[in-house]
Amino acid sequence: MDVAGYIEDDRERFLAALKEWLAIPSVSGDPARAGDVRRSAEWLAAYLRGQGWPTVEVWETGGLPAVFAEWPAADPAAPSVVVYGHHDVQPVEPLEEWDTDPFEPVERDGRLYGRGTSDDKGQVFFHTLGVRAGMAASGAAAPPVTVKLLVEGEEESGSVHFAELLRAHRDRLACDAVVISDTTMWSADVPSMCTGMRGLTEAELTLHGPDTDLHSGSFGGAVPNPLHAMAALLAALHDEQGRVTLPGFYDDVIPLTGEERELFARLPFDEASWLETAGNSLAAAGEAGYTTLERIWARPTAEVNGMWGGHTGPGGKTIVPRSAHAKLSFRLVAGQDPVKVQAQFEKWVEANTPPGVRAQVTIPGGGVRPCFSPIDSPGVAAARRAMERAFGTEVLFTREGGSGPEADLADILDAPLVFVAVGLNDDRIHAPNEKVETRLLLKGAEAAAYLWDELSEALR
Amino acid sequence: MDVAGYIEDDRERFLAALKEWLAIPSVSGDPARAGDVRRSAEWLAAYLRGQGWPTVEVWETGGLPAVFAEWPAADPAAPSVVVYGHHDVQPVEPLEEWDTDPFEPVERDGRLYGRGTSDDKGQVFFHTLGVRAGMAASGAAAPPVTVKLLVEGEEESGSVHFAELLRAHRDRLACDAVVISDTTMWSADVPSMCTGMRGLTEAELTLHGPDTDLHSGSFGGAVPNPLHAMAALLAALHDEQGRVTLPGFYDDVIPLTGEERELFARLPFDEASWLETAGNSLAAAGEAGYTTLERIWARPTAEVNGMWGGHTGPGGKTIVPRSAHAKLSFRLVAGQDPVKVQAQFEKWVEANTPPGVRAQVTIPGGGVRPCFSPIDSPGVAAARRAMERAFGTEVLFTREGGSGPEADLADILDAPLVFVAVGLNDDRIHAPNEKVETRLLLKGAEAAAYLWDELSEALR
Repeated sequence: MDVAGYIEDDRERFLAALKEWLAIPSVSGDPARAGDVRRSAEWLAAYLRGQGWPTVEVWETGGLPAVFAEWPAADPAAPSVVVYGHHDVQPVEPLEEWDTDPFEPVERDGRLYGRGTSDDKGQVFFHTLGVRAGMAASGAAAPPVTVKLLVEGEEESGSVHFAELLRAHRDRLACDAVVISDTTMWSADVPSMCTGMRGLTEAELTLHGPDTDLHSGSFGGAVPNPLHAMAALLAALHDEQGRVTLPGFYDDVIPLTGEERELFARLPFDEASWLETAGNSLAAAGEAGYTTLERIWARPTAEVNGMWGGHTGPGGKTIVPRSAHAKLSFRLVAGQDPVKVQAQFEKWVEANTPPGVRAQVTIPGGGVRPCFSPIDSPGVAAARRAMERAFGTEVLFTREGGSGPEADLADILDAPLVFVAVGLNDDRIHAPNEKVETRLLLKGAEAAAYLWDELSEALR
Repeated sequence: MDVAGYIEDDRERFLAALKEWLAIPSVSGDPARAGDVRRSAEWLAAYLRGQGWPTVEVWETGGLPAVFAEWPAADPAAPSVVVYGHHDVQPVEPLEEWDTDPFEPVERDGRLYGRGTSDDKGQVFFHTLGVRAGMAASGAAAPPVTVKLLVEGEEESGSVHFAELLRAHRDRLACDAVVISDTTMWSADVPSMCTGMRGLTEAELTLHGPDTDLHSGSFGGAVPNPLHAMAALLAALHDEQGRVTLPGFYDDVIPLTGEERELFARLPFDEASWLETAGNSLAAAGEAGYTTLERIWARPTAEVNGMWGGHTGPGGKTIVPRSAHAKLSFRLVAGQDPVKVQAQFEKWVEANTPPGVRAQVTIPGGGVRPCFSPIDSPGVAAARRAMERAFGTEVLFTREGGSGPEADLADILDAPLVFVAVGLNDDRIHAPNEKVETRLLLKGAEAAAYLWDELSEALR
């Protein structure tokens, strides 16, 4: 029996089991649900044991538990692959906006509705079917690569203990690639793979001027105004081409290849509709020479997230204010290092603060590293072949503008990331009436089955 | 007997009467003191009647009363002069910081301490002595010009009914010049006269971007950020020379004359000390080609008084915010019209707002017109001669960076302003332990006595 046939045969059992798991309200952000998150981990562990995984463990963290399962390849020289997903889910409020109970999953019109169907239990679960389907089709007793499933329980509450967990189990998690199944495809008709996520670093900038607010009749026009200095600094953060002016900012950026740009351009992107989701009279704007998709996925940015100073209440107050404040964030792309950008920003502020104004930069934490796997890297190329076999059509590429714990996986496990996912942007993750397309979930299982074959060749 | 002799003789009577008036707590900003403000007006009216003023009236307003007194010149063809001052005073809080009761005036070390001694009862009062001293010295039964004393009761609470009062009594207040005695001299050793005050207009600017705050991971770098647009706009409000960039902004400015600049330069101005009053690490900054005194007195400015938008609370929030806000004020100088500048600002904002951002400008009211009398104008030149006769030394010139109701006097009465005052910047007006230098108060009376002679020649 081939992979597709096995999956078709197993469909009802697969969905019944998934529904059982989805019924456990594993909301990690709600302390009252901690017991349910634990129950979710234990349910998954029991299920995997039932499916024949040789090693299944519940891993404790300083917070909520993760599940680890390993199915070694028969060949000890075969590559190892970590598959990452998470079993915790978002809160469900406002409950009254759900058409059906978020924790009583139902199939309707080819979709499975319920919290976690797309983000991320459904996508974790297709791997369990994929492994079995692959073995059934090949007649082997083990997958062609060692599969190490790592299912986190705190992703929706900030993955606060995840890096620690990875470090604690680094040896057990040693691998040649990490498959992430927690993203989306372009659309049901346009299967695609994500190749990278932007990183992030934040900064708070304070400019100090006079010791107190000054009367602008007595001082205005003759002493520096920190709000003017702030406006000048922030205006100078971009040049006329929309490029960030921090010296060295682009030095480490891995440029988009012609191939990736060409593939992005083939995505059926309706910019006008996209803009409408953001605001009525909005225009696209950004770094010259790049499309909107390139700008949000593959180009770094400097964004002022907040700014304040002086009199902000009702009425007028004719002062030269004592200080001005801004909160900034930088989205970083492949090659960039948050800590390096932080230093660039500090240096730039120091060099550009006018006389009589004192600048203070606060950096909250080390930031989030960007992650990226080139289209032609072995893992991505292999996963693309697996996806194309499952979907029977060309697979395109996307990236994501923000990121979660993915960079930690790449950094701590020192392995390339491969994003294989079948969620859609309209799955309403984090919102009422979350769903997944049942057909895509099964296609995900099929792609996952082919994936081990492809990776066993590619990573060897 | 000459003027100085008369004043010396009258000294104790003059101070005793002034103390009586100062003891009335005419705090116009405190509704509970409204009765005291009225009592202050009535006390002054009674005193002026006692001093022989032919016409004395208490003028009602929509708020607190003013006092009007007129002493016609014997010659019906003689010029008329309005003398402006106010009989209301600032609040006295914090009371515990006063060394003596603010409403029990005391003389100590050549100074008279108490609320209103300098601002402005003392300075109104020297005119009552000046008029008598002048007549005593000349032996005439009337001053050489028609003196019209107008003593407002709401100056310290915004002069809200003052323009209305001027318009209602425009005929009675018809005059050839307005003498204002509510400012300061450079110092006890450097007598000076103010020749102008800056005007003011304010504006609030809002820039609208997305309909809601957007996730900067999904949109950052590809849609306009209103905070960036605000920073760019406000940074572009000044050029590299520190000049305001609104087209036409300087067109109507009456330039400083070489003489005025030269006289400003002779004032013993200690810029370092002045900067220290504003802040420790402050540097002088402003329009290139002008000194600090020129910048604060005689050059127009654009000042951002407040700015806000996006996330301003603790922690980070990676958003492209929906809007940005700023409050601005423009200090205006001789020749400029607030309404014209408002239109210039609106036009400039419209021309410089980037695509995808919608700007909204709110102008709160018509602004304050600047006022100015050239050094060589007849009234100023005459007053300078009077001051020099009284002080026996050269009189220099200043201007003021802000303004009160003075422009209304010039505009509504259509007469040039002449500033004759003997207050000092260290008189602590509006603060605890307000004082006036007794010697300067008497010099003021002497200058006032000479003033009518000088003006009767100059304005004829």
